[in-house]
Amino acid sequence: MKNRDYLLNEYAKLVILKGVNVQKDQIVFIQSSINSAPFARLLTKEAYLAGAGEVIVNFTDEIISREHLIHKSEEKLANVPDYIIRMNEYACENKACFISITSPILGINSDVDSKRLQISSRALNERLKMRRDYLMSNHGQWTVVGYPNPVWAKKVFSGFSEEEAFDRLLESILVACRVDENSFSNWDKHNQKLSRYNKLLTDFNFESLHFKNNLGTDITVGLADDHIWAGGEDVSTFGVRFNPNLPTEENFTMPHKFKVSGKVVATMPLDFQGKLIEDFYLVFEDGKVVDFDAKKEKETLKNILFYDEGASRIGEIALIPDDSPISNSKTLFYNTLFDENASCHMALGAAYPTNTKDGSSLSKEELEKRGCNISGIHVDFMFGSPDMEIIGKKKDQTEVKIFHKGNYCI
Amino acid sequence: MKNRDYLLNEYAKLVILKGVNVQKDQIVFIQSSINSAPFARLLTKEAYLAGAGEVIVNFTDEIISREHLIHKSEEKLANVPDYIIRMNEYACENKACFISITSPILGINSDVDSKRLQISSRALNERLKMRRDYLMSNHGQWTVVGYPNPVWAKKVFSGFSEEEAFDRLLESILVACRVDENSFSNWDKHNQKLSRYNKLLTDFNFESLHFKNNLGTDITVGLADDHIWAGGEDVSTFGVRFNPNLPTEENFTMPHKFKVSGKVVATMPLDFQGKLIEDFYLVFEDGKVVDFDAKKEKETLKNILFYDEGASRIGEIALIPDDSPISNSKTLFYNTLFDENASCHMALGAAYPTNTKDGSSLSKEELEKRGCNISGIHVDFMFGSPDMEIIGKKKDQTEVKIFHKGNYCI
Repeated sequence: MKNRDYLLNEYAKLVILKGVNVQKDQIVFIQSSINSAPFARLLTKEAYLAGAGEVIVNFTDEIISREHLIHKSEEKLANVPDYIIRMNEYACENKACFISITSPILGINSDVDSKRLQISSRALNERLKMRRDYLMSNHGQWTVVGYPNPVWAKKVFSGFSEEEAFDRLLESILVACRVDENSFSNWDKHNQKLSRYNKLLTDFNFESLHFKNNLGTDITVGLADDHIWAGGEDVSTFGVRFNPNLPTEENFTMPHKFKVSGKVVATMPLDFQGKLIEDFYLVFEDGKVVDFDAKKEKETLKNILFYDEGASRIGEIALIPDDSPISNSKTLFYNTLFDENASCHMALGAAYPTNTKDGSSLSKEELEKRGCNISGIHVDFMFGSPDMEIIGKKKDQTEVKIFHKGNYCI
Repeated sequence: MKNRDYLLNEYAKLVILKGVNVQKDQIVFIQSSINSAPFARLLTKEAYLAGAGEVIVNFTDEIISREHLIHKSEEKLANVPDYIIRMNEYACENKACFISITSPILGINSDVDSKRLQISSRALNERLKMRRDYLMSNHGQWTVVGYPNPVWAKKVFSGFSEEEAFDRLLESILVACRVDENSFSNWDKHNQKLSRYNKLLTDFNFESLHFKNNLGTDITVGLADDHIWAGGEDVSTFGVRFNPNLPTEENFTMPHKFKVSGKVVATMPLDFQGKLIEDFYLVFEDGKVVDFDAKKEKETLKNILFYDEGASRIGEIALIPDDSPISNSKTLFYNTLFDENASCHMALGAAYPTNTKDGSSLSKEELEKRGCNISGIHVDFMFGSPDMEIIGKKKDQTEVKIFHKGNYCI
């Protein structure tokens, strides 16, 4: 790759200035695996140069986490030491922004007992609810970004040497994130485009969307009352603009938790907690999953659906045209951050309160009244295809074609 | 290196079983730089196999720490967030054992303002006093071990490629730590030998030791009342045997804080907080440094001496024969863990309470009455040489020759 160092630094600047848009003296909390340390170092430097008051890098390692999962007693797995909670409280109380670097070691937990995985992730989810609420309500800026590791790279580019695969994955990430000598103007233009669709779709105020393709998907997704379409640049409750995902190609909104019916067939595998769920479908009635199957890791899928009451309903529906950079690259990333931006997707579990009018200031009961799904998890999965047809039904029951052959036609 | 993986695993086992001697269900706290992650992973696995209930790996990165030192405000540098204190309290309250992996990036802070370094390290020192007291009083088992990184390796083996230098440093560490197919019996024998000297020296109950060589060292070190010689295997206050350093070649005891007089000339450079102090000497009167100089980093040496009241007095005096494996390897490691085991050394700052009879259960005032030095720091430096002569003076003023030409002759 030409100019590798230059582009990596541009990428880091983009994450700091466009991703979280660090404010003067703000705390920046970076969650990184040790494999992503070179990028965490760049982000730290750029964060300070942008005026951050303090950068906290919380390094973890999936190989060590796997040892915990295998060896700890169930009691220990269920225990989240208070210092971990305090660390997250410290960041939230001080209005930090959060950067999460995703770099999965695919399949690392394939042989780990699902029950033990569940105990551990449920405990973390429950004890760090405060942090999830902070992020999902945009009380601080946050962003999720990617950085390669050799295992992930070899899965995506299996025909190449480890080093070459790493370089190719890095290049794919940089292209997907529109990183070049014009990164910032690229993102301004891109955000403007996403914003136009957000406004258009919000103004239609659709009652429901109907998705249909030749792979078996035929599903009606009712939308929540006063729903808002979002995607691209977002605004924190303190008025700071930021981009929650790099890359992002989606326009998404809040489905109605009781108004989803039909069948959805996934078009990409789903990496969840180091287990890869493949070839799966879900059938919904009145918003709830009533049937499902998967050719691989059905139990993991079941664990997601049975996580809590809200986990078998959806909290997000997102539209991504087939003609988008990531989709056009024909690269399967085996990573939701990238794959969800190549394909229409929905998320099992919690909705973003910001996807309904004034949602960040509503109580849980008020949100639920609008159709907002509540859950301890939020798991996206992809079901888009080049032949996807989407029809919106307005309150007056008239229909509007939104997607034809996988792309916007609205 | 032959059998590299086998030997590394043996090394990890040795650290877990002989170093900290992990007890059933105990918490193991591992402090590791991200450069040492491969070894931290091995230690984690071996700790669980040995019955650990929980392994906490606290990863830090000197490159990121340097960014903090350069960019944070002085106020932020002086602030240790409470979650860091809670993390250490959690470990101490639950009677954890501690493993610290040393892997310095030499000279990394050479251009960092000394004042800022001081603010940061003083804050950490003061806020983590509870942890230092826990370790120095052996309330839990602890050990310090080494693992190479490319920068360190190139400093030690400058004539080699990065990869080769790394391998050579790793091999030197393994040899210094007596790691081979008989690692455990090697350590049993070695500990027995160190233990014999501990007993012999303690039984002499010397009033003082006089060190003299042709490099300018000519110093009398009075010993504390009821002092005990230690070295090699130690015992925690809960009765668990452990080895505080791997490697270790030293017999050491508690000097009397008011009874040190003369000049000591360092024979090796000293890496302190990423700054390398070279060619230095100290002159003592009544236990206190009254004159000093260094050809490089004199200011850093000054910062050590002026850290607090106890920092200009000594808290440890250690004897290492010139004929020891590390010394014989003629390798300068630029790292105290290794270099201090190739050379007689002393430490500025705090003494180990365990180096006087029943010291762990004495109050600060009782310890000081025996001559025990109290300080927020403990910095070893090396002054041994092949021509070192050491004479012990007993309470009855008779003299006993302890070292002749750098080796035990007692």
